[in-house]
Amino acid sequence: MTTVHRVFNFAAGPAVMPVSVLEQMQRDLLALPGVGISIFEISHRSKAFEAILAQAEADIRTLAGIPSSYRVLFLQGGASLQFSMVPMNLLGAAETADYIDTGSWADKAITEAKKVGGVHVAASTRADGYSRIPSPPEIALTEGAAYVHMTSNNTIEGTEWKTLPSTGSAPLVNDASSDMFSRPIDVRRHALIYAGAQKNMGPAGLTIVIIREDLLERSLARAATLPAMMNYAVHAEHKSLYNTPPAVAVYATGLVMKWLLDQGGLPAIAAINERKAASLYAEIDRTGFYRGTAAKDSRSLMNVTFRLRGDDLERMFVEEATAAGLDGLKGHRAVGGMRASIYNAFPEAGVDALVSFMRDFERRHG
Amino acid sequence: MTTVHRVFNFAAGPAVMPVSVLEQMQRDLLALPGVGISIFEISHRSKAFEAILAQAEADIRTLAGIPSSYRVLFLQGGASLQFSMVPMNLLGAAETADYIDTGSWADKAITEAKKVGGVHVAASTRADGYSRIPSPPEIALTEGAAYVHMTSNNTIEGTEWKTLPSTGSAPLVNDASSDMFSRPIDVRRHALIYAGAQKNMGPAGLTIVIIREDLLERSLARAATLPAMMNYAVHAEHKSLYNTPPAVAVYATGLVMKWLLDQGGLPAIAAINERKAASLYAEIDRTGFYRGTAAKDSRSLMNVTFRLRGDDLERMFVEEATAAGLDGLKGHRAVGGMRASIYNAFPEAGVDALVSFMRDFERRHG
Repeated sequence: MTTVHRVFNFAAGPAVMPVSVLEQMQRDLLALPGVGISIFEISHRSKAFEAILAQAEADIRTLAGIPSSYRVLFLQGGASLQFSMVPMNLLGAAETADYIDTGSWADKAITEAKKVGGVHVAASTRADGYSRIPSPPEIALTEGAAYVHMTSNNTIEGTEWKTLPSTGSAPLVNDASSDMFSRPIDVRRHALIYAGAQKNMGPAGLTIVIIREDLLERSLARAATLPAMMNYAVHAEHKSLYNTPPAVAVYATGLVMKWLLDQGGLPAIAAINERKAASLYAEIDRTGFYRGTAAKDSRSLMNVTFRLRGDDLERMFVEEATAAGLDGLKGHRAVGGMRASIYNAFPEAGVDALVSFMRDFERRHG
Repeated sequence: MTTVHRVFNFAAGPAVMPVSVLEQMQRDLLALPGVGISIFEISHRSKAFEAILAQAEADIRTLAGIPSSYRVLFLQGGASLQFSMVPMNLLGAAETADYIDTGSWADKAITEAKKVGGVHVAASTRADGYSRIPSPPEIALTEGAAYVHMTSNNTIEGTEWKTLPSTGSAPLVNDASSDMFSRPIDVRRHALIYAGAQKNMGPAGLTIVIIREDLLERSLARAATLPAMMNYAVHAEHKSLYNTPPAVAVYATGLVMKWLLDQGGLPAIAAINERKAASLYAEIDRTGFYRGTAAKDSRSLMNVTFRLRGDDLERMFVEEATAAGLDGLKGHRAVGGMRASIYNAFPEAGVDALVSFMRDFERRHG
């Protein structure tokens, strides 16, 4: 195999994957060993694929310590489809769900839920430009809410919940798209967790849903009108094989789960992620040349957002960084500035390279 | 690269892909040339991915001769999600849509449509075990139907429409999952065509929708209640980038489209497909030892279904065939027997191998 030129990919998702996983996929691309068929071609009803799916689920359960009273579903459509599936399954037209509005994606989830039933915004940091996570006293929950929806990491704004909110008896639904499996997760505190795979877990095209079994009763009660493909109970009953799953994405995500276990699981990857983020935030805070946009107690370990003085300097930063092999640092257009996404598979060497580049850039332009 | 053992894969989908496409994906898996990022990792907002998506669409348009008044959408969820999206976008609760019931998948489409509005079964061959396509006089359309839904190839039952039905002024909606791009297609006779990619076009996880622009007005009129992810107009407006698309599946499908163009386009691949099917059906009809299950004028060129006398002999056939490197020949449990799926990328050498095996099996058991 000749040497392949790879850049440091700071993209917010789809995002960098472990090189060892890519290498295994490359080696076995023409035919899975002992099967004689590529993962791109394999029947989802074959024993070989059923084993791949079962192993991926088993590894996810091990990684996150998922109790047997929860189902793990492999779906399509990303968080965007979950924005609708959650209320369509869990919220009656005359009921109310609480939503905590911490960013652009939470806002989209609210928009979709309003099409289904009542929505109460239990807290919002929109007035602060979504630069922080609300404190517990700011969260005003509804008595008897169908559920409480939160977004544990806000990809665009670079913020992250440090502890889960208390929701009393209301089921907690968490869009964990940008921090799932980047740190230990207390599944029992949740009723439903969903995440697109394309940040910490695998390629685009797969959505992981972890759902407490008792919630499936709400789906069953709505089966007469709910589209089968939008019904959690249908997917649970068929063990994610109601229809053809995105086999390649399931396989790739399974390999990443194995890689995570090999790293030492979620506590170990969390330690690495903390070290990477600490290194970047230390550089941001060092002199004041760079300015972090998230409140310090809300800073995301996954998406590090920062600014420079003036659009011209920011544009120059992104251009020079890209030329130096540091790709994808331009912030989301909604907030501007820079964003370094440093998910699980993002290498520490890439963080070091960015820190060096930032120092050099400051020397030249500070 | 060492030699890789590959079997002949007769699976009904996901199904065999062109080896040259697999080889190109393998070569470029660690990093797309000149990009330095794997297709498994690339941002859907990057110029490189936007070019891949645009090229795939351009090649699809060239292949099928798609007029500019039609949009091509790259979605997720397979035909199963389209079973719901079609009525949710196109059928009012007080309106009626005509469905032509030619098999198990058409029946599922009917089940989902009934959750949305009125459904009139304009024709059904269920009483004949779905062994044939209805003749024109059998089809009783509703005056003013919202649309007419058909299934151009019935994967499980091995039947295929040879000519499109006349639907008058009613828009024709076609589930072409199992024959899309296996032969020339008269797009102008359709209002909407949908297909999962995983048979003739690419891997699982991508759905292609070709929709006439005037239909988008129905989607727009329902935007207040229709989930954004289920709204054709939303995906059309965002050029299939409303949310993160399944990038790997888009890329792989794009490569297959290039391969199809290299073969000479749809007329050329249709000639090859006819030759492959003719060879198999000739063997089935040769002595009466094998029995084709579909009516001769309805036989599918994609899914060749046949039986032997007795379950034991059929089981033996499948076992021996599998041992001989002819994989995936067991028919769907709903109909039993054998099914040889021979989509675009299925090699003629594999058909020859199956014919030889069938002759040998007959010699030994006839």
